[in-house]
Amino acid sequence: MRASGPRLEFWYELASTYSYLSAMRIEAVADEAGIDIVWKPFVLGPIFNAQGWSTSPFNIYPAKGRHMVREMERLSAARGLPFMMPAPFPQNSLNAARLALIGHEEGWGPAFARAVYTAQFADGEDISDRKVLGKILGDLGRDPAPLLARMEQPDIKQRLRQQTEEAQELGIFGAPSFLAQDELFWGDDRLEQAIARLTKP
Amino acid sequence: MRASGPRLEFWYELASTYSYLSAMRIEAVADEAGIDIVWKPFVLGPIFNAQGWSTSPFNIYPAKGRHMVREMERLSAARGLPFMMPAPFPQNSLNAARLALIGHEEGWGPAFARAVYTAQFADGEDISDRKVLGKILGDLGRDPAPLLARMEQPDIKQRLRQQTEEAQELGIFGAPSFLAQDELFWGDDRLEQAIARLTKP
Repeated sequence: MRASGPRLEFWYELASTYSYLSAMRIEAVADEAGIDIVWKPFVLGPIFNAQGWSTSPFNIYPAKGRHMVREMERLSAARGLPFMMPAPFPQNSLNAARLALIGHEEGWGPAFARAVYTAQFADGEDISDRKVLGKILGDLGRDPAPLLARMEQPDIKQRLRQQTEEAQELGIFGAPSFLAQDELFWGDDRLEQAIARLTKP
Repeated sequence: MRASGPRLEFWYELASTYSYLSAMRIEAVADEAGIDIVWKPFVLGPIFNAQGWSTSPFNIYPAKGRHMVREMERLSAARGLPFMMPAPFPQNSLNAARLALIGHEEGWGPAFARAVYTAQFADGEDISDRKVLGKILGDLGRDPAPLLARMEQPDIKQRLRQQTEEAQELGIFGAPSFLAQDELFWGDDRLEQAIARLTKP
C-alpha cells in the first residue's frame, strides 16, 4: 500500500453478483490509476431488512431479477468471466464475510474474496458451507481449522455487525458501493467515476 | 429515419431523472452510430403499483433517493446540464406522456420531450400543469389549444395505457430502458451497450 496516496473504499457483499464483477477488476483499475483499495466486506441482509425486504430485491421484483441475470450474462461474457446463478440466490454470506474480515487483517483478503466469488458464480458452490470455505482457505495456503474456529468467535461476529452498521450510516443501500473521500458511488458501473473523483479533483 | 437500418427503442418516463439524461444525448449518440431511435413514452406509476409501490422507489427508500439526487448532480454537472429536483417528486407525467404520443406521430415528439425535461429539471416547473404544457407547445410552434383538447380524448388515454402495458410485457421495470432487438437494457448508463448490440452483432 502506498504511504499516503488516495484510497478508495470498496464496500462489497460476497453474495452480490455485481460485487463479483468489481472484485475481479478493481485492483487492476486501481493500480493503473495509482490509488489504493480498502476492501470493506459487509452483508446486505440487515440493510435490506431495514427497508422491509426479507430477501434480495432481485427475488422480490422478478422483472428486475430477470434483467440482472441477463445483464450479468452479457457483462461476464464481455469481460471473459464465467457466470452462473447460484442456488439458492442470494447465498448466505455471513461466514464468508467473517473470514474476509480476518483475511483483510492478515493480507489474504482480496485473494479470498475473489476465490469465494469464483466458487459461487463460476462453480455453483455453496459459500455458507464450511467445507467449501475450508477448501478455499487451503488453496490459498492457509490452515483452515484455526481460521474456521476464529470465524465463529464473538469478536469477529461483532466486527461484521459493526462494519455493516457503518455501511448503513454511510448511506449504503446496495453493493458494490465505493466511497471516494465523502462521495458515495453505487454499482460496478460507477467504479471509474469513483476513481476519477480521487485522481482528478 | 433511415429506410431499413437498425432501430433502438427508447422507453422513457417524462418524470424520470435518468430518462432526462438519456433524452438529452440519445440522438447525438444514435446519429454517430448510424441507428434510428424509436421514442416510446410510458408511465411508471402502474408498473410501480404492480410491484406494490405507491410512489417512486427513490421516495420509499431514502438512502437510494439521496444517492440518486447526488448522482444526478454529479452526472448533470459533468455533461453541462442543469439539474434541480422538482417538487413534488415524481411529477405527474400523464398529460405530458399523452402529448408526447401525439408528438411522436406528428414529428415534434423528441423536441417536446426535451422541453418537458428542461421545464421540470432546469426550471422546476410543474409538468402536469396545462399552462406549462401549453407554453412548451407554443414555443415549439404548435397550436396548444387543439393539442391540449386531444390529450384528453379517450383514444389517446387508451394508447398510453396500452404502451405502458406493452412496457410491462417487455419486462420493463424502470426508466430509461432500451430495447435492441430482443435485448433489454436498463439505465442511462446502458445506452452505449444497447447501441453496440445493434451495431456490433
